[in-house]
Amino acid sequence: MYGWRGKIGLILPSLNNTMEPEFNKMAPRGIAIYATRMLLAKGVPEDMEKLATDTEKASHLLKTADVTGILYGCTSGSLIKGVGWDKEIIRRIEDTTGIPSTTTSTAVIDAFKELGVRSVVVATPYIDPVNQIEKKFFEDHGVKVIAIQGLGYTTGEELHRESPETAYLFAKRVFRKEADCLFISCTDFACIEVLNLLEQDLGKPAMSSNTASLWGILKKIGIKERIDGFGEILRHL
Amino acid sequence: MYGWRGKIGLILPSLNNTMEPEFNKMAPRGIAIYATRMLLAKGVPEDMEKLATDTEKASHLLKTADVTGILYGCTSGSLIKGVGWDKEIIRRIEDTTGIPSTTTSTAVIDAFKELGVRSVVVATPYIDPVNQIEKKFFEDHGVKVIAIQGLGYTTGEELHRESPETAYLFAKRVFRKEADCLFISCTDFACIEVLNLLEQDLGKPAMSSNTASLWGILKKIGIKERIDGFGEILRHL
Amino acid sequence: MYGWRGKIGLILPSLNNTMEPEFNKMAPRGIAIYATRMLLAKGVPEDMEKLATDTEKASHLLKTADVTGILYGCTSGSLIKGVGWDKEIIRRIEDTTGIPSTTTSTAVIDAFKELGVRSVVVATPYIDPVNQIEKKFFEDHGVKVIAIQGLGYTTGEELHRESPETAYLFAKRVFRKEADCLFISCTDFACIEVLNLLEQDLGKPAMSSNTASLWGILKKIGIKERIDGFGEILRHL
Amino acid sequence: MYGWRGKIGLILPSLNNTMEPEFNKMAPRGIAIYATRMLLAKGVPEDMEKLATDTEKASHLLKTADVTGILYGCTSGSLIKGVGWDKEIIRRIEDTTGIPSTTTSTAVIDAFKELGVRSVVVATPYIDPVNQIEKKFFEDHGVKVIAIQGLGYTTGEELHRESPETAYLFAKRVFRKEADCLFISCTDFACIEVLNLLEQDLGKPAMSSNTASLWGILKKIGIKERIDGFGEILRHL
Amino acid sequence: MYGWRGKIGLILPSLNNTMEPEFNKMAPRGIAIYATRMLLAKGVPEDMEKLATDTEKASHLLKTADVTGILYGCTSGSLIKGVGWDKEIIRRIEDTTGIPSTTTSTAVIDAFKELGVRSVVVATPYIDPVNQIEKKFFEDHGVKVIAIQGLGYTTGEELHRESPETAYLFAKRVFRKEADCLFISCTDFACIEVLNLLEQDLGKPAMSSNTASLWGILKKIGIKERIDGFGEILRHL
Amino acid sequence: MYGWRGKIGLILPSLNNTMEPEFNKMAPRGIAIYATRMLLAKGVPEDMEKLATDTEKASHLLKTADVTGILYGCTSGSLIKGVGWDKEIIRRIEDTTGIPSTTTSTAVIDAFKELGVRSVVVATPYIDPVNQIEKKFFEDHGVKVIAIQGLGYTTGEELHRESPETAYLFAKRVFRKEADCLFISCTDFACIEVLNLLEQDLGKPAMSSNTASLWGILKKIGIKERIDGFGEILRHL
Amino acid sequence: MYGWRGKIGLILPSLNNTMEPEFNKMAPRGIAIYATRMLLAKGVPEDMEKLATDTEKASHLLKTADVTGILYGCTSGSLIKGVGWDKEIIRRIEDTTGIPSTTTSTAVIDAFKELGVRSVVVATPYIDPVNQIEKKFFEDHGVKVIAIQGLGYTTGEELHRESPETAYLFAKRVFRKEADCLFISCTDFACIEVLNLLEQDLGKPAMSSNTASLWGILKKIGIKERIDGFGEILRHL
Amino acid sequence: MYGWRGKIGLILPSLNNTMEPEFNKMAPRGIAIYATRMLLAKGVPEDMEKLATDTEKASHLLKTADVTGILYGCTSGSLIKGVGWDKEIIRRIEDTTGIPSTTTSTAVIDAFKELGVRSVVVATPYIDPVNQIEKKFFEDHGVKVIAIQGLGYTTGEELHRESPETAYLFAKRVFRKEADCLFISCTDFACIEVLNLLEQDLGKPAMSSNTASLWGILKKIGIKERIDGFGEILRHL
Repeated sequence: MYGWRGKIGLILPSLNNTMEPEFNKMAPRGIAIYATRMLLAKGVPEDMEKLATDTEKASHLLKTADVTGILYGCTSGSLIKGVGWDKEIIRRIEDTTGIPSTTTSTAVIDAFKELGVRSVVVATPYIDPVNQIEKKFFEDHGVKVIAIQGLGYTTGEELHRESPETAYLFAKRVFRKEADCLFISCTDFACIEVLNLLEQDLGKPAMSSNTASLWGILKKIGIKERIDGFGEILRHL
Repeated sequence: MYGWRGKIGLILPSLNNTMEPEFNKMAPRGIAIYATRMLLAKGVPEDMEKLATDTEKASHLLKTADVTGILYGCTSGSLIKGVGWDKEIIRRIEDTTGIPSTTTSTAVIDAFKELGVRSVVVATPYIDPVNQIEKKFFEDHGVKVIAIQGLGYTTGEELHRESPETAYLFAKRVFRKEADCLFISCTDFACIEVLNLLEQDLGKPAMSSNTASLWGILKKIGIKERIDGFGEILRHL
Repeated sequence: MYGWRGKIGLILPSLNNTMEPEFNKMAPRGIAIYATRMLLAKGVPEDMEKLATDTEKASHLLKTADVTGILYGCTSGSLIKGVGWDKEIIRRIEDTTGIPSTTTSTAVIDAFKELGVRSVVVATPYIDPVNQIEKKFFEDHGVKVIAIQGLGYTTGEELHRESPETAYLFAKRVFRKEADCLFISCTDFACIEVLNLLEQDLGKPAMSSNTASLWGILKKIGIKERIDGFGEILRHL
Repeated sequence: MYGWRGKIGLILPSLNNTMEPEFNKMAPRGIAIYATRMLLAKGVPEDMEKLATDTEKASHLLKTADVTGILYGCTSGSLIKGVGWDKEIIRRIEDTTGIPSTTTSTAVIDAFKELGVRSVVVATPYIDPVNQIEKKFFEDHGVKVIAIQGLGYTTGEELHRESPETAYLFAKRVFRKEADCLFISCTDFACIEVLNLLEQDLGKPAMSSNTASLWGILKKIGIKERIDGFGEILRHL
Repeated sequence: MYGWRGKIGLILPSLNNTMEPEFNKMAPRGIAIYATRMLLAKGVPEDMEKLATDTEKASHLLKTADVTGILYGCTSGSLIKGVGWDKEIIRRIEDTTGIPSTTTSTAVIDAFKELGVRSVVVATPYIDPVNQIEKKFFEDHGVKVIAIQGLGYTTGEELHRESPETAYLFAKRVFRKEADCLFISCTDFACIEVLNLLEQDLGKPAMSSNTASLWGILKKIGIKERIDGFGEILRHL
Repeated sequence: MYGWRGKIGLILPSLNNTMEPEFNKMAPRGIAIYATRMLLAKGVPEDMEKLATDTEKASHLLKTADVTGILYGCTSGSLIKGVGWDKEIIRRIEDTTGIPSTTTSTAVIDAFKELGVRSVVVATPYIDPVNQIEKKFFEDHGVKVIAIQGLGYTTGEELHRESPETAYLFAKRVFRKEADCLFISCTDFACIEVLNLLEQDLGKPAMSSNTASLWGILKKIGIKERIDGFGEILRHL
Repeated sequence: MYGWRGKIGLILPSLNNTMEPEFNKMAPRGIAIYATRMLLAKGVPEDMEKLATDTEKASHLLKTADVTGILYGCTSGSLIKGVGWDKEIIRRIEDTTGIPSTTTSTAVIDAFKELGVRSVVVATPYIDPVNQIEKKFFEDHGVKVIAIQGLGYTTGEELHRESPETAYLFAKRVFRKEADCLFISCTDFACIEVLNLLEQDLGKPAMSSNTASLWGILKKIGIKERIDGFGEILRHL
Repeated sequence: MYGWRGKIGLILPSLNNTMEPEFNKMAPRGIAIYATRMLLAKGVPEDMEKLATDTEKASHLLKTADVTGILYGCTSGSLIKGVGWDKEIIRRIEDTTGIPSTTTSTAVIDAFKELGVRSVVVATPYIDPVNQIEKKFFEDHGVKVIAIQGLGYTTGEELHRESPETAYLFAKRVFRKEADCLFISCTDFACIEVLNLLEQDLGKPAMSSNTASLWGILKKIGIKERIDGFGEILRHL
């Protein structure tokens, strides 16, 4: 009997290689992960905007799987049109299914509040136009972005050959100690294994899109089990 | 770096609750699982026939994830139109993507050959019309169906409340010792934990749709690591 | 030398499938479990009242096994005639054997006191008439029953096909957060594995008939070893 | 869901302290143990004969627990009236319940056949009159009793203070190397932990009433999982 | 390189079966145990008095093994002539060898002080005359003996067939809750495995001759590693 | 209950630091070790000859401990007067106690036979006169000594600062590949941890005085449990 | 006492990041690794030729560490001048130190012989000119190179960001099934974790420069312990 | 990908046998160790002074390995010319490479400050002239040397045959309880396994050259992961 404690439905960009394995690694006992994909061919603003087109259809597919909660699992895709875009997506999913839902960018903002974060350094795999949109989204929510830096990738091929070890190095290089928090953006950027080490070495919470997303959706469906090993936010359940 | 040894793309019916958790449990080191869904609301023949409609679109989504192989993960859905239907589906996926593919029913037939099975008892969650189609499919491939029995379910709600323990009891009751093999049909029927025990207690190989499917797709993409704990077929890699 | 630290004698309804396995799982080092049965064919009030008929005989059988304490292991059976019925049963066992004894309902009331519980939500497998008797019993002991809900079962067949996972779901659905405690009633309702998870997710103590019973009888015979893994009450030894 | 693979009903003498803990230790995954008692106050022939009086009633109690098989778990009690007494008891249980059954002495004889044993040394806790009846029973079944020796106990108090370590010493002293097998008689004589060591040190199979009983009833209900750690016979499943 | 952190020389009564195994079980890393025996045929006062005759010779043997400290390992033997007898023995060992030494009874008195014990219940295997001498010895050191009870044994044969489980039962029966501490006397009374359980169940420190002795000699030679699992006193290193 | 399967009495030279720890490490379950010492101040022939003087007294001390077998645990001390000296010592122990006994040198010769060894290289800590006596003893028993080399030590202080690692190096340097076996002589030469590695690297059985002694005495008292981790001879039980 | 069983001296190119960690991971118990560096700034033929200039000095440094054997740990550097170059290097090291030595390319050729390899596919990180020199070296030793392919790297920066997972993918792509063996060349190409998986998936031995080197030097110094987990050649010790 | 979190370059005296194995044992996840050697033939002042000659060359070699930090790993060698000599070495390394660096003696002084140590007892393997230079170096930095004692060794052969166990004994004998700290000097003196035990037995921090060095270089490169098992200073990261 899979997912007897909770079934998480994932709506994710089609090229994503990371969210399903990382959610399966981190999910507590009794939580199962069910995924469906929407087309995203490249990590560029125009594709990210189109991503939401099929939201209703994807939501409906997951509803037939009788999921407990639905996560729209894309950071930039859920903030690409600025403040309010994430809430709009949530509304569309919940209108379609009646199932409690959230998006990655909603979860990230909620997690910043949970941890009392007022300033952040952001490490991303994105190109600069995407970074600037994300920066504005965070600052419009009252979180100062002290620095944001991207690897400049737009294809899965570039991103998927990176390992968590390179994420560690990149994030450490980008970080500035006056920030309250390190945030590694993108649900397709593999890094959960190094978040605890980054927290030790930097002395500040280190959060990724996937740890924030998992925390957000578990909280939404009423699961409260502290998860160790992947940074501060998942110890807050 | 997820899926560095192999990335399995799953096309699965939208109501399925079992295939993703079971594949994640059984997959060997370095193999990652990526899923997308096609609408299946009820386990009735007319819905199963419609399932294939979106095959090209689903295949294309998985292609953007750069998967190594694609599995059309539905037993009855890949045989619902009789002999040749599975090959037709494979052709459509491979034409769309150029990626090696298989279906559950193709894998089951291949697995029967691998194990030298000439007669089988089949336990399913299906209603009888579906059972009869499956029976004919197997016998048209030269495997005698000594008995086939279903739980008569058509909804996910009915099926998902069953546990592997009930699968054990049901399968044991249905089995007849003159058969070469026990086959538990349906990629949404949770039972991998009890296959080894069924083999011990019945003295014959016990295979499920998911163990056959995993074996079939791993073989297709050239992974040859014996997997213990889930019945005979996965020890044949 | 089994039971050198303590031998628990169980008098249990004949159809019970759960109490012996759960007590064997939870019992601390040096504690052994010895059982004998009294006829209970169905979970209906008239059968539960008759259950006590053979109390003296069952007690005598356990006395020959030289047990340290005796538990009358049936929740509804030990409260079916209202306040005082449990004490009457204890008196009959102790008069027959001279061995310290308790009943499940006595232990539950004691456990409520130990945890300072003044209001409770109760999840049961029973039919409503039994629920109403249980509700009155608790309220007559000063514990408010905010909600009580049953699965409506009267036979072992119905009850024994449920798993702890379904107990989790059912109990979570029934619970109301203004209660001090969740109580899952019936020594034949398998659920000890999910009590810790329920406590985490609900934020309140979660207790079952079997955890309360084990706590009650161990306390009676002077065993004081904190038992982890099965909810709050067993950490109070 | 306890006992989903098999539920063993135990009818055992009321003073027995050993059979339930040893069966719970040895039982394979998915097998649950349910017990009920019949009066046996002392280990003397007249009490053992009376033991069978309540067989039908005890069988009926276990039937309500929906057990898969029933074991009449007393060595001397199932042979006290000589050849055929065990079969008579089985007949009475099966007539009452329709459930497959066996007795300890039946299982011991079957186990001797399984291992090809034609001569045996027997170590018991009994007084000599009981030993002589057992000897005759074995020899009437064609198994030569090279030696049989008892500790001369008739009460639980005497027997229950012995540990498996003393069983080892006693059995080793009694054994004679021309025998095919060592048999430690009595389902209330704790010794399963030392059977493997006895086999190593004596170079012959070492079997106890409880290992033979468990083997016998598991075979009867179709469970075939080799159990290690408790002597040769349980490796023959 | 055995005993690089410390080598404990044991002078023990020839019939002792317990001190060497228990010291080897409890000793921390880098501590080795070296033993030599002095004649004690029976546990009677006259033999215990004679035990000390060979003290110088035994001490000299251990000195050639280059031990770090010497323990005269006999409770009653080191107090049999009353207050001061233990100090006299220590003087004789240290005069012979120049090596720091202690006796069991000295260690017990020191341990009472360490734990702030002013009243004690004593469980022994001795006959009553020995108990009375021990009682006087403790009370002359200011520790009130609330109760002292013996098993009445004088031979190794009687004592060595007892297990720690019986020590648990016997000690628990003798204990009275107004005492500050339970002391199980005799370096040949196996009981270290049950001391933690006795402490839990009685709610007071439980100490044996061997745990006190090991604590005493380790302290003497400057080893300060908390040892868990054998009662309070060894956590005081 | 220590030593319930067998109690080994050790008579050992007073300066020995190795035999008790190594026997405690290697002994199988249920075997306990009890030691007493006889004076040996230096490893020179005259002292070794005197060692045997107190044999009867030491044997009598161990008899009061009710041991199952007695080992005279000194290699050179049991062969110092040439062929027959070991048998003479055994005779004196058995005459005194009636308990089965052996000596180290007897066990070594028996072990050579067990392994079919006809030529040997011997590494010792001894001075040359002792080596020559040992060489003659072996050759008089038909085992050719291809090489024998000593570290030239006579005191415990010199010997006890060596570690098994130096024993490895020394033995490897001394070995010559035409030999059937490597023998590391002296029950006070710590080396059991490196015997398996020596066997791997040299391709021949590697045996020490303590592994041969333990094998010899266990065989004498009828214990037949293969012991892994310490060279070939202990796998021959 | 580090390296008591054997001390391996490594002479390695200064930019190497892989050989020390991989040797420390694979080395059996008692083997220690000591390294010194010689200048190699880029992976180009002219630098590799110069590498050998300081051989005598490096050898002398390791001699002061009292190493048991010396490995010249560079594949291309030890074959850059063709057949005989490796033997010349060995001669210079042994002339300087008198210590048994080998080089990586010598070990690879020896390993091919050990495994009976007559044809090979080679995967390297090198540029093509280096590949051609390696190909000629192997073929001059009678091993046919069916295919050789490089990543075209000349700097440490390029090479050190690759993970064993990419080595798996690259090697699998290059391999051709008519070859007897897969060889992954370069002591700075991290890949030992994937060799077993490559062997499973390709069905042929998979060897890297470091596994061949470790095998070669251990064999040279007489260590014969089968090492599991890193491909076939290390199981041949 | 080795050393993704940090790469430590070690410049060490050629005869050193200890620093590489101990650093590999203690290093946290993601830290790799790369070594190069400079000539030191004997542990005498004149050789230690010459050691620094090749500093620039060694530094350059490590720079090509792209290390994150460089440690000049020799205690006496980095203080042999008194206060300032260590800073001078650091300056030369950093001028050559631009990589953050430290020396053992620098790290030791920093560690004294970190722990608030104002007086110390020092145990060394050195001859007295070296001890006197070290004493002056510490006292010139304001740390009183209550006692300093050496084993008087000058060669690797003498030093490398000592085990951590002898380090324990020697250090314990030298220690005086009025000191704030025990320091075991020399990066070639194996002792990390006994530092925790020394701390327990002496009741003061125990630090070795290698634990101080590792702490110093990790702090320098920004790694902050508490390391347990090797004394107080590494718990201060």
